[in-house]
Amino acid sequence: MKLSVLDQSVIPEGSTAATALRNSLDLARLADRLGYHRFWVAEHHATPSFAGPAPEIMVARAAAETRRIRVGSGGVLLPYYSPLKVAEVFRVLSALDPGRIDLGIGRGAGAGSIEAHALAPGVPVDGGGEGFSGKLAELLAFLVDGFPEGQPAGQHFEESLRLAELADELGFHHVKTVEHYFHEYGGYSPDPVTFLAAAAARTSRVRLVTGAVLPAFTHPLKLAGKLAMLDNISRGRLDVGFGRAFLPDEFAAFEVSMDESRARFDEGVEAVRRLWAEEDVVWKGTFHSFGPVTMLPRTWQRPHPRILVATAKTPASAEAAGRAGYGVMLVPSINPREQVQQTLAKYRAAAGAAGFEPGEEDVHMSYGCYVAEDGQEARVGGRQSSERANRALAAAVSSWKDTRSADYPGYEKIVEKAGRGDFDRSVAERKTLVGTPEEVRAAIDDIRGWFGDFTISLQVISGAMPFEEAARTMRLFAEHVLPHYASND
Amino acid sequence: MKLSVLDQSVIPEGSTAATALRNSLDLARLADRLGYHRFWVAEHHATPSFAGPAPEIMVARAAAETRRIRVGSGGVLLPYYSPLKVAEVFRVLSALDPGRIDLGIGRGAGAGSIEAHALAPGVPVDGGGEGFSGKLAELLAFLVDGFPEGQPAGQHFEESLRLAELADELGFHHVKTVEHYFHEYGGYSPDPVTFLAAAAARTSRVRLVTGAVLPAFTHPLKLAGKLAMLDNISRGRLDVGFGRAFLPDEFAAFEVSMDESRARFDEGVEAVRRLWAEEDVVWKGTFHSFGPVTMLPRTWQRPHPRILVATAKTPASAEAAGRAGYGVMLVPSINPREQVQQTLAKYRAAAGAAGFEPGEEDVHMSYGCYVAEDGQEARVGGRQSSERANRALAAAVSSWKDTRSADYPGYEKIVEKAGRGDFDRSVAERKTLVGTPEEVRAAIDDIRGWFGDFTISLQVISGAMPFEEAARTMRLFAEHVLPHYASND
Repeated sequence: MKLSVLDQSVIPEGSTAATALRNSLDLARLADRLGYHRFWVAEHHATPSFAGPAPEIMVARAAAETRRIRVGSGGVLLPYYSPLKVAEVFRVLSALDPGRIDLGIGRGAGAGSIEAHALAPGVPVDGGGEGFSGKLAELLAFLVDGFPEGQPAGQHFEESLRLAELADELGFHHVKTVEHYFHEYGGYSPDPVTFLAAAAARTSRVRLVTGAVLPAFTHPLKLAGKLAMLDNISRGRLDVGFGRAFLPDEFAAFEVSMDESRARFDEGVEAVRRLWAEEDVVWKGTFHSFGPVTMLPRTWQRPHPRILVATAKTPASAEAAGRAGYGVMLVPSINPREQVQQTLAKYRAAAGAAGFEPGEEDVHMSYGCYVAEDGQEARVGGRQSSERANRALAAAVSSWKDTRSADYPGYEKIVEKAGRGDFDRSVAERKTLVGTPEEVRAAIDDIRGWFGDFTISLQVISGAMPFEEAARTMRLFAEHVLPHYASND
Repeated sequence: MKLSVLDQSVIPEGSTAATALRNSLDLARLADRLGYHRFWVAEHHATPSFAGPAPEIMVARAAAETRRIRVGSGGVLLPYYSPLKVAEVFRVLSALDPGRIDLGIGRGAGAGSIEAHALAPGVPVDGGGEGFSGKLAELLAFLVDGFPEGQPAGQHFEESLRLAELADELGFHHVKTVEHYFHEYGGYSPDPVTFLAAAAARTSRVRLVTGAVLPAFTHPLKLAGKLAMLDNISRGRLDVGFGRAFLPDEFAAFEVSMDESRARFDEGVEAVRRLWAEEDVVWKGTFHSFGPVTMLPRTWQRPHPRILVATAKTPASAEAAGRAGYGVMLVPSINPREQVQQTLAKYRAAAGAAGFEPGEEDVHMSYGCYVAEDGQEARVGGRQSSERANRALAAAVSSWKDTRSADYPGYEKIVEKAGRGDFDRSVAERKTLVGTPEEVRAAIDDIRGWFGDFTISLQVISGAMPFEEAARTMRLFAEHVLPHYASND
């Protein structure tokens, strides 16, 4: 169990507010030395007992005077401030002490809600209602997947960058890109880092997620290096999803055996992690040997950016990710609901057994999404983009026809089904989020009931749907769906 | 010899301006079919004989109605317009027909100056003077080389991106980054494409140059793919420099033999070129075999971005580059002047023999640069940054002490000298550009006398000198040195 400290800068009888604040900093240093997990300061105005009108100043000072403990507010009273101002203040704080700052917010001085905020750190949303869930990060995502289908590449990237800017502006949680080759199915993105670097330069708060990079096709020195560059260029906004890859013709082109897929993945992820976290790394692996080397640049986030593991359908991968403290990225649309639930249960049990708390889990699930004010219009547009995506997927997996691999048991059957999607059934089964904002909310309520808290990656894809429709989906989602879950009312 | 057409939309006697314009478009289509190189339209106002008040409209139409011929203005009369507006118009045109649009500008209606502009296509500068040189690209470059020396990586990238924006704003020709590992000598840039993608997103006109990417360490599918992404993200502003690499510990870490360096380079460049230019590529090489595959995304510039070859000291490499129609990147500071002249002569002779015109050559040379209003101050600052760079280089080449390779004859001696730079001698020999703007102009005049027209890459490096000094150097250079060569007066 992790222990944290919530401090209210209580003014001792007969003493002054200045003393109370100095006491708070003493306490912060002590908590840091003793290994506590977090130090939180409260906000109180115009009371004789508490000296805490400006938690952001205390956070700044406490962070400066400590070394490893996380420091945050519990909480900033949002109704008093412009949300922009609060976000700016905490961005400055995070810039000064990357990875150690948590923003908790409140709607009043009630102690009850402060505890609730402590459950939901780091999420700059307007928490205006009662009954915060354990994790605010619920949705808020955005995915550039790249089904160009003949779209000129210049237009594709221009539109994708504009969608990334929109995600930044509308408060979405992340922008995610795949790594694929040769096919319309993701093939405009042979190197997700290149796109995300451009997106990082055009945005200021949205996180950047590789979904995923493929260690099988890139040397770990190269992968660690360019991701560390991106982590610095984005000033710590990078989360790195790693995947095994699953398209036979990609393996063939790189002359890598699919039967080595898992071994290459495991070696690649661990080599990259060590290159980030350690200096003078010596690596003697099955596929690569090097060292001692110290990778440059060092990552912005220490010891390294958040790691996520893409698991299409192997529960053992999810368990391993849980044990290692990594997040998981799942694709619920290609698996029965019960199987996703089992995979999640195994992941969460493994993470719990390894000492990670529920709030530290990180589960991303991707859903195709199409929202319009008019439900009928949404279903027409959603069907169209869904069919385009299915055609692209069907073409990409066609090389599975003559492929079998021990590292991919049963894949030939999965991919057989790919591209034959039944749109209506997919919507009914909540595997695709299509409809009015209200209909999409109902679907998300169901999904949440099945799977608990997680982050949704919306597949709002330049190429699979016209730019204007992708932008409309994002705007409607941000306006009518997002606030519902942010405050859970 | 290449033939082009300059059209003035002459109004036939008894006819109308509309007919004259239609005639011009007919002529453009004819020139396209017959294989002429360029079709230029003039600008004339308020004359009874010429129907050409809006060449930009004609360029748009002519480009739309032709397929391969280059189309441009000869020239837009700059004094009548805001330069920004002209740049915007021609950026739109280039976006519609990438790689086929030339902007020629004029200061009045004189035929003499129109011909002069035809010699200097595609360079959006105010050519206000007489006597344009054969090539305006003389100047104007900027290099992020990454000698961080303990600078935090986040700050390094932030400053480097700001310098890139400044280069864009001040009219420099390109931003260039290296590929190196592990050492302060370039080691913050293990993947130049990642930095250049961020720079592309923050700039609108400056070109982006890899100086260089190293095919020895990256699979050609990967290299072709991410560079094609960058070409699209930058909307055709990418030039790709390839290098062989020369640091033994980089080869050791990637488990690549230095003795395979040239073979890997040749195979890598040619495989990437074909992946860009062709579809269904089948490659059976010594180091890689794949195909048939069609690389995605297709490059913005067709058939592919400009290719440059980094040649540190092997004249045969320069000759091969000339024969292939590639540019060269030279480092004059590490070679005697006569050797640079010989290398250039061989390059130019080979390019000429292969049918390339002098204007199509592309020679980049890197020079350390430090400019200040006060000459003494410049020498103090220049010495400091030069010494920092030398220390970084000396550390990086230390692994040459125990290395010999047939692919790198005599390198152990070159690198022995590296890092022992004599600053005063280097300035006196015009191998480093340090001083007042006037002193730097004098140095460039000398260099031009020795080497002819070429593009200077200024090493103005975040990390090797404080950001403010790098920015000052660029501002002074842009204000007092650049215009001198742009108009050659």
